[in-house]
Amino acid sequence: MPFAKPSNSIPESSGTRYPAPHDELVKRRAWRALGDAFGLTQFGINLVRLEPGVWSSQRHWHAKEDEFVYVLSGHPTLVTDAGEERLSPGDCAGFPAGVKDGHHLKNDSDEMAEFLVVGSRIAEDHGEYSDIDMVFLPGRAGYTTKDGKKL
Amino acid sequence: MPFAKPSNSIPESSGTRYPAPHDELVKRRAWRALGDAFGLTQFGINLVRLEPGVWSSQRHWHAKEDEFVYVLSGHPTLVTDAGEERLSPGDCAGFPAGVKDGHHLKNDSDEMAEFLVVGSRIAEDHGEYSDIDMVFLPGRAGYTTKDGKKL
Repeated sequence: MPFAKPSNSIPESSGTRYPAPHDELVKRRAWRALGDAFGLTQFGINLVRLEPGVWSSQRHWHAKEDEFVYVLSGHPTLVTDAGEERLSPGDCAGFPAGVKDGHHLKNDSDEMAEFLVVGSRIAEDHGEYSDIDMVFLPGRAGYTTKDGKKL
Repeated sequence: MPFAKPSNSIPESSGTRYPAPHDELVKRRAWRALGDAFGLTQFGINLVRLEPGVWSSQRHWHAKEDEFVYVLSGHPTLVTDAGEERLSPGDCAGFPAGVKDGHHLKNDSDEMAEFLVVGSRIAEDHGEYSDIDMVFLPGRAGYTTKDGKKL
């Protein structure tokens, strides 16, 4: 019985809990929870797959959690306050907790894009979305507008 | 000025602080500290490169830190209490904190092997080496034998 696993043997999930209409471009994202498959709890490591036209998330930043991405295949576009940049396999980017420069990846190419996303798991994490009127609450307790209305 | 970085633009380090003779097979390991390059502090994410014959570390487990590896190229061999297994690109493995099943990767092939290693950063982490009489102390304070003699 081998200890390691081929990443493509780990089940793939897809979807988002974003309220409409913010779910529209994100709901077709797909990911394999690689770290969870080995019982890891201190960080998540997901292999994310984006078909053309799909976004990884709405552009956001985390108050408490560090996050990191590493491109495995394809050419996803990274968006930050610095603008848009088309990435290639082997490119990487890191987003320290508390830096209010929102980021996301979107696949504006015509081929599949795959990347690893690593993020700490800190219960009191919360944060904001840069381009829409939405925040995410501590403890994965859902979403509100920036002035606190439940979404 | 792009935000992301090609991983091969991030400086490569090599070596080990293991005392002789435990450094011999490990000292030629090479790694790029990808997460550090973006100011991340909650976890490390290193791109490790092993020439044929080189080991990533002595076989070890961590008391407090989760660890994860993802193979990018080549065929490193994973060693755990379950034995040896030759890995391939896309294979992954995770090692939860406190599980006393030591692991390491060694390159027994005749081509280069590259993989990502993710590990939490917890100051009070410590642990043991499975195949030699050595432990590592909290706070990166060095090494002793299993009965406490300074190495």
